Amino acid sequence: MESCTKSPDLYSSVAPVCSMEDLAAPAASSMGFTYMVAASQTLGLAVILMTGAWMGVYRGGIAWENSNLQLNVHPLCMIVGMVFLQGDALLVYRIFRNESKRSTKILHGFLHALALVIALVGLIAVFEYHKKKGYSNMYSLHSWCGIAAFSFYLLQWLLGLVFFLCPGVSFSLRSRYKPLHVFFGVSLLILSITTTLLGILEMLLFKISDSYSSFVPEGVLANILGLLLVAFGAALAYILTRDEWRRSPLAEELALSMDFKTLTEGESPAGSH
Amino acid sequence: MESCTKSPDLYSSVAPVCSMEDLAAPAASSMGFTYMVAASQTLGLAVILMTGAWMGVYRGGIAWENSNLQLNVHPLCMIVGMVFLQGDALLVYRIFRNESKRSTKILHGFLHALALVIALVGLIAVFEYHKKKGYSNMYSLHSWCGIAAFSFYLLQWLLGLVFFLCPGVSFSLRSRYKPLHVFFGVSLLILSITTTLLGILEMLLFKISDSYSSFVPEGVLANILGLLLVAFGAALAYILTRDEWRRSPLAEELALSMDFKTLTEGESPAGSH
Repeated sequence: MESCTKSPDLYSSVAPVCSMEDLAAPAASSMGFTYMVAASQTLGLAVILMTGAWMGVYRGGIAWENSNLQLNVHPLCMIVGMVFLQGDALLVYRIFRNESKRSTKILHGFLHALALVIALVGLIAVFEYHKKKGYSNMYSLHSWCGIAAFSFYLLQWLLGLVFFLCPGVSFSLRSRYKPLHVFFGVSLLILSITTTLLGILEMLLFKISDSYSSFVPEGVLANILGLLLVAFGAALAYILTRDEWRRSPLAEELALSMDFKTLTEGESPAGSH
Repeated sequence: MESCTKSPDLYSSVAPVCSMEDLAAPAASSMGFTYMVAASQTLGLAVILMTGAWMGVYRGGIAWENSNLQLNVHPLCMIVGMVFLQGDALLVYRIFRNESKRSTKILHGFLHALALVIALVGLIAVFEYHKKKGYSNMYSLHSWCGIAAFSFYLLQWLLGLVFFLCPGVSFSLRSRYKPLHVFFGVSLLILSITTTLLGILEMLLFKISDSYSSFVPEGVLANILGLLLVAFGAALAYILTRDEWRRSPLAEELALSMDFKTLTEGESPAGSH
């Protein structure tokens, strides 16, 4: 059976035309996809466990009331929220490709909301820690990138809610906004990972500046954590940018979307977009 | 005239079929493309100028023999090579879309080679500086990410040379390697920009750790430089990931590639890939 996905062959001038049955088929059930998702989840869990180990073994553990340990809440919350959950929220359209669009969309929005709440706890932790210690806020490159990433992420979530979950937004407007939503989604994940690397380096240079250059275990552990974060980002970006692993609309959605388009745009279902 | 690019409408089951004349037309000559390229180049030049100003005004200038000033060669070379030239090398297929594929390919390879040579000078500068000062090498997250970025970039260049410039590599092998080459190309640019941000933060925490939290001009300048680097990366990633701005094969290339495919694969020019 000829594949229904877009051919990567740039020289092919004739695009394959697919039937509705073809479009509804789980075209991405290849082993490659499964392995890549498994690798990304393994990397994501390893990153969370290593951050926990770093805070637990070398930084004295985590506590909200103790001003010294409150700082340690920050990296753990930001990595769980802004990296792992944000990343996995982007994957749901690839993994749950045979579920209905609406339930996948709600899961996508819910995971991002959870990520935002956990990240907010992480932000409060570091601002409270600074206040208790009398340290300045918002002067470092890590904090500038972090506030930019969090603010744009919140804005992206709100725009996504308005465009894709509010009824009454036209098919045409959704179609025009969607490529921007996808581009900024991947970009914000990458910016979040970059900010995390800046945070790791900043914490190392604040806490172990005297021994970092002697390859002490804490420094090596945190450096490896940084490289695993890069690998997690690369694995997710790879999965998200493969044309052949994109979610295809289910047969009933195709029919429904045609009706919706006709209703909102007044176009013939058979008309070109 | 109906656009010849792939429709972003996921619900359209019928892909447009284009004539060879359509494919050869400069479909990306939209104002949006021109503005985005202009914005990216403005950001790229601003980043180089600000790095020069940082080194010149606050770090005492640049010199190879003076061990204190040799360090300052490093950021300037890495930003010119690993960020600006590497980024612009990725843009040549979009900007020179009406030039022949072969000359565009040679320019792409040449810009990357120039980037590698300039980056190598920047690497030698920092290793020599460390040696003269008796500092340790390769212990920080910045150095780990930097060596990974440079090594994979060199490997990517060598693989690109073998697959795309050596005669005798089959059309099928080139087609299968190309999506990986493109994915790793954009990924390495992002990793290079991330590494640059780590380098900026590291230099600030080494050189102005006492005054950074007081929002001194040097710290603010370097933070803005970091944000402009993020914007440069985002502008380039946007240009490179728009389907409608991809280079379409020229009419004569289409005919030639069919012949090449037939010769190397033994397929009929009209056969499906």
